[in-house]
Amino acid sequence: MSEKEVGVGILGYSIGKAHAYGWQDLSRYFYPPKLRPKLVALAGRSRDNVEFEADRFGIERTYSNWEDLVKDKEVEIFDNCAPPSMHAEPTIAAAEAGKQLVCEKPLAKNAPDAKKMLDAAERAHVKHMTGFNYRFLPAITFARELIRNGTLGKIHYFKGAYLNFDGGFDDPNFPIRWLHQSETAGYGALADLGTHAIDLARFLVGEVSSVSGASETFIKERPVQEGSSEKAMVDVDDTTIACMRFQNGALGLFESSWLTSGRIDYLRFEAYGTMGTLRFNLENLNELEVFIKDGQKGLEGFKRIPVVGKDHPYMKKFWTNQGVGFAWQYSFTNELNHYIECLASDKPLGPIGATFYDGYKAMLIMDAIAESSRTEKWIRVPE
Amino acid sequence: MSEKEVGVGILGYSIGKAHAYGWQDLSRYFYPPKLRPKLVALAGRSRDNVEFEADRFGIERTYSNWEDLVKDKEVEIFDNCAPPSMHAEPTIAAAEAGKQLVCEKPLAKNAPDAKKMLDAAERAHVKHMTGFNYRFLPAITFARELIRNGTLGKIHYFKGAYLNFDGGFDDPNFPIRWLHQSETAGYGALADLGTHAIDLARFLVGEVSSVSGASETFIKERPVQEGSSEKAMVDVDDTTIACMRFQNGALGLFESSWLTSGRIDYLRFEAYGTMGTLRFNLENLNELEVFIKDGQKGLEGFKRIPVVGKDHPYMKKFWTNQGVGFAWQYSFTNELNHYIECLASDKPLGPIGATFYDGYKAMLIMDAIAESSRTEKWIRVPE
Amino acid sequence: MSEKEVGVGILGYSIGKAHAYGWQDLSRYFYPPKLRPKLVALAGRSRDNVEFEADRFGIERTYSNWEDLVKDKEVEIFDNCAPPSMHAEPTIAAAEAGKQLVCEKPLAKNAPDAKKMLDAAERAHVKHMTGFNYRFLPAITFARELIRNGTLGKIHYFKGAYLNFDGGFDDPNFPIRWLHQSETAGYGALADLGTHAIDLARFLVGEVSSVSGASETFIKERPVQEGSSEKAMVDVDDTTIACMRFQNGALGLFESSWLTSGRIDYLRFEAYGTMGTLRFNLENLNELEVFIKDGQKGLEGFKRIPVVGKDHPYMKKFWTNQGVGFAWQYSFTNELNHYIECLASDKPLGPIGATFYDGYKAMLIMDAIAESSRTEKWIRVPE
Amino acid sequence: MSEKEVGVGILGYSIGKAHAYGWQDLSRYFYPPKLRPKLVALAGRSRDNVEFEADRFGIERTYSNWEDLVKDKEVEIFDNCAPPSMHAEPTIAAAEAGKQLVCEKPLAKNAPDAKKMLDAAERAHVKHMTGFNYRFLPAITFARELIRNGTLGKIHYFKGAYLNFDGGFDDPNFPIRWLHQSETAGYGALADLGTHAIDLARFLVGEVSSVSGASETFIKERPVQEGSSEKAMVDVDDTTIACMRFQNGALGLFESSWLTSGRIDYLRFEAYGTMGTLRFNLENLNELEVFIKDGQKGLEGFKRIPVVGKDHPYMKKFWTNQGVGFAWQYSFTNELNHYIECLASDKPLGPIGATFYDGYKAMLIMDAIAESSRTEKWIRVPE
Repeated sequence: MSEKEVGVGILGYSIGKAHAYGWQDLSRYFYPPKLRPKLVALAGRSRDNVEFEADRFGIERTYSNWEDLVKDKEVEIFDNCAPPSMHAEPTIAAAEAGKQLVCEKPLAKNAPDAKKMLDAAERAHVKHMTGFNYRFLPAITFARELIRNGTLGKIHYFKGAYLNFDGGFDDPNFPIRWLHQSETAGYGALADLGTHAIDLARFLVGEVSSVSGASETFIKERPVQEGSSEKAMVDVDDTTIACMRFQNGALGLFESSWLTSGRIDYLRFEAYGTMGTLRFNLENLNELEVFIKDGQKGLEGFKRIPVVGKDHPYMKKFWTNQGVGFAWQYSFTNELNHYIECLASDKPLGPIGATFYDGYKAMLIMDAIAESSRTEKWIRVPE
Repeated sequence: MSEKEVGVGILGYSIGKAHAYGWQDLSRYFYPPKLRPKLVALAGRSRDNVEFEADRFGIERTYSNWEDLVKDKEVEIFDNCAPPSMHAEPTIAAAEAGKQLVCEKPLAKNAPDAKKMLDAAERAHVKHMTGFNYRFLPAITFARELIRNGTLGKIHYFKGAYLNFDGGFDDPNFPIRWLHQSETAGYGALADLGTHAIDLARFLVGEVSSVSGASETFIKERPVQEGSSEKAMVDVDDTTIACMRFQNGALGLFESSWLTSGRIDYLRFEAYGTMGTLRFNLENLNELEVFIKDGQKGLEGFKRIPVVGKDHPYMKKFWTNQGVGFAWQYSFTNELNHYIECLASDKPLGPIGATFYDGYKAMLIMDAIAESSRTEKWIRVPE
Repeated sequence: MSEKEVGVGILGYSIGKAHAYGWQDLSRYFYPPKLRPKLVALAGRSRDNVEFEADRFGIERTYSNWEDLVKDKEVEIFDNCAPPSMHAEPTIAAAEAGKQLVCEKPLAKNAPDAKKMLDAAERAHVKHMTGFNYRFLPAITFARELIRNGTLGKIHYFKGAYLNFDGGFDDPNFPIRWLHQSETAGYGALADLGTHAIDLARFLVGEVSSVSGASETFIKERPVQEGSSEKAMVDVDDTTIACMRFQNGALGLFESSWLTSGRIDYLRFEAYGTMGTLRFNLENLNELEVFIKDGQKGLEGFKRIPVVGKDHPYMKKFWTNQGVGFAWQYSFTNELNHYIECLASDKPLGPIGATFYDGYKAMLIMDAIAESSRTEKWIRVPE
Repeated sequence: MSEKEVGVGILGYSIGKAHAYGWQDLSRYFYPPKLRPKLVALAGRSRDNVEFEADRFGIERTYSNWEDLVKDKEVEIFDNCAPPSMHAEPTIAAAEAGKQLVCEKPLAKNAPDAKKMLDAAERAHVKHMTGFNYRFLPAITFARELIRNGTLGKIHYFKGAYLNFDGGFDDPNFPIRWLHQSETAGYGALADLGTHAIDLARFLVGEVSSVSGASETFIKERPVQEGSSEKAMVDVDDTTIACMRFQNGALGLFESSWLTSGRIDYLRFEAYGTMGTLRFNLENLNELEVFIKDGQKGLEGFKRIPVVGKDHPYMKKFWTNQGVGFAWQYSFTNELNHYIECLASDKPLGPIGATFYDGYKAMLIMDAIAESSRTEKWIRVPE
């Protein structure tokens, strides 16, 4: 690893773009950086798209397969932004090649694959991070602080949801994408959206012990492309819901759907504790609503806290400390900066950053929900 | 039954007070009434309280037991506002005495009792109504219209919740009440609050086919009275949640809790259909939020509709057709007026009014949720 | 005055209806009442309407002119709910006949008339109240408490607005009503709506010293009746706005309009003080939003306080102490109950209740705004 | 001007930082750019700060006075981000040196200075832009479209406000800054905040014909620095409000204050037209609320439109087309990209971009408001 720069190779140019902005932005926002990420290579299936995006970010080398990216000597951080079906094999190969690891969510198509990735990363003694970027929104990091420092007392009920209509999935004529098929995606809304809500449940409340879920596919086929009359089967969930029990005794409710028209990007949680309550909605991502039982007669109510002031997480250095706050993109900037800081100082990513262990635990819960939906029974989540 | 007046006897002076206001108010708001209810008798356990409340409403006769109320010849409508444990026996006796019947929710402690009440009422050929008053909020009746007339397409996902902290139940030092014990209440938050959300699921979407639920008691004992160090056991649920499947294929989510600090009176539902979405929250009871997929480019969004205009349910006659709308109390006025109109014209209460059949169906679902929580399996709801 | 009952005569059956409900309801809500109002007579122009409304409320006697109402010996309280042009003469006559006085807002067509009414009432030594009913919403009375007890520090900026579209005034084809003509109404939106915002400015902050306003009539003629092609002139303001200076040095902003489409009943105020801020909106009438500079690092924000708990004004006795709170109608119940309590105990109405002095002061400000709009100069408000 | 790159020199490193991000980001977000801005020099008073910020952005040359920046041959675009007192002289010099011009708002300390800047820029035949960045928020550009295409009918009432507490200005112990003194800033809240609301009034509704305003300084002195007992005089407005009349007959209301505790960044407007209403609040910057009188019975209401879809301004190319939308920083990216596109294609900046003419017109209105506050009369705004 060079003293000042570290080479980053990205696999995938869709969410990969958000990462590319993040890797490039963090050196300016968190200035001076401990280590300066440099995008050295981009790989992806479509040659045209890869070249276009590489040009956009000033990346010199492009590849059309992951193997070449893994072989690239200047790639010190391997950032996997491909679909879940492309997570395990390339990431494990990268681990074996000694690369530092970042992998988008969900960590894999299923828990066994995720476990292999975790094991490979640990064997290789490299930093490994699962892309649970929302942990790095100031309002969410702050929510965790309020729970951990006892402001809300003991949490007894937690609701986590991620609902949207994903740019048109509520339209049966929206063409099929890799997200709609289990071979590439593992699960549907559960994987695309739900995995975030599940990770936040663990991040904020703790381990989940058992679940009872229900999944349904409402739009069972879609055109193979825009305007086509040829259809392809959708074999993943459009909507998945579940009841949960946490190890600490709390009850939990979980939902994910990409057919919920009108919900733009409703990643929502509510945590009810013995001393108070908090609420968050990604559609209003700079705000945390907090109710504290402080006994002020007549003055109790939910406070809408704009989490944008200098006393909030990530705000001291980040200059855009403007009232109206952060955008979604900055969650990646914060997340990747955290990774870089931990890499530079050889500190553990947790508990704020999500490792492959966290990615694996989320997969265990997702597998349990899917099994519960099939068997119509509560399922224990393996330890 | 007299031509102009009809005698009403009320059992119970707690929610009974809301009924008393409603019976007296409907003659003025829906003027001229088809039939004029007259409060003739009030019965309840505490002699002092009964007398005080009877004075308040100008009711001449008071009783300290329900048997006397049933025997009172001038009582033509028997309005049961007592706790659930006092629903079945008095109501069945009243049915057998030929009284017209109104009974508060939940209809009974359990489904078998509710079935006996339904059977008795049908045998007696009297009007029978379960007190699901929220059906009569203009926003909710209007929501049903929008679903029934196809504005939202086919509903595929429904969420119903009733969360509050019931004037202090989130405080472990809040003394025990009849609501906290199964002998009097049947269930806890599930019965007190959840029954409304369950009724609205049926009212808006249709029959529920199966459920998987989880209940928990977090505050396991409470002082026997304010400030006392003596404790009594709480043996009902503080929080109950469930996943549901509807007969028409839709998924459903259900929650009820009286420990959710900060939630004042959050009776909430969201219905997601193939053509749009609607949302309601009792904390903002004159508003319905509607998202319609009307294809207006760039202009799609949730509309906050103030359901207070002359084109909305119950608004034509009701004079307080003021912008800012209705209060909770008026749901009773509307509900009881509906009962009176059906009685006067001998029309069926349904589908807007809830009969004992609706009360019974809600109990079947509640029993199924409770059984599911015990057995950790999905439970079919009997037809 | 009888020991237990007091006779009330109402002039006008439009807002008069809200008063009638209030007079009848207060004996039940604030039970036991100190004095029981009894509606003894109703007067109004249209015989049919008067009879219909008298029937609704069980009022025995009706009159088609105010003189007869004043002469009615059983009328002890003269409640003037007629248009402003009918305020001065009948109210003064009633004062001279020794009646207790209630008069709707605005107190008169202009300040000189209002002054005559005040003088007559004081000469007669009777209780006199101007119908500023919003003072009696719990959230507004509570707002005053928070200002008076110093919670917000010294107020330096106050905004008051009343915007709506009054059931269709934004439609040029909406037929002309008495509200649209200065002969009957004095002013337009300024009188119908603005007078409330002006009263609340005084109620919450104190006396206004000078104003600079602008009025405009945008819809200059309207059909004489529904669907008619014949038009009548509108000679009052559709919209009036003003800057204000208060005697205590604060700045103020004022607006009133009945052409503001989409605003249902937006009686809004915001008060900014050296220690905090509060906001109210009649469209959400049970809530007060409060920001207090309490120095809690990271936790500052606006609190949405549901003003419905037992520590809030009017809530102890009022049974409908239900989470979701009050409706508009109850402001009249509270207001008239306050009048009755003051009458029964011979206590002053102020500072919570508005006397004719308050009605007169509001008229002085309205006249000053109108003069300012004409002259394009700041106008001092007479002491 | 090089074929592909254009050299940018920035004066000032405070808001200058937001510009620096914008200049660097636009090449990636709007890819491929027509012309690639390159930051070549940064000038500012404090040598340490200038060097630190130059390092952050990879800018090679730094200067501690504006004269050197103007002399720098590689500076093709002169971007003035200094306080208003430093706007006129350096910008005019830059114009005379043939530089392309960008200048932050307000354009100058007063209208005569602004006029000189406009004249110099026009004589030099260069592109000139005033930094009214909010025009480039998608919701605001879209608001203009809805007004211009007649969706709202004719606008008759417009409210514009910018209220905040500017990171602590509501605290009398917050130390004095250049913003608090007329020598550097011209005006106070009126210049810092109000100028944006005034520009949007012109952008959305049209020219202002006359104004009547009131300004006040509530905190008359501040510590010279953090914790110091030495005080300096504040001689600018903390709060300025005004009534306005537009040339097209509409009424307007204006407010600006930096003492409004709890208001984070409340740049707010409401436009009321004959066919509908729209509302915007910078605290929720991706949303536009629209009420359209479309005659749908029972379904009228304010629609909350998330202005983040592909049919909205700036969204096609901008990749971060994520539900939850834009942040404040992107307004600069969009604005500077617009400037670059107009420069590359030699197209006029208007009507979306604000030229120095727009900056000058805003200053005329600000001067008129200040004069009105002094003279207590309505003031005509010069043509």
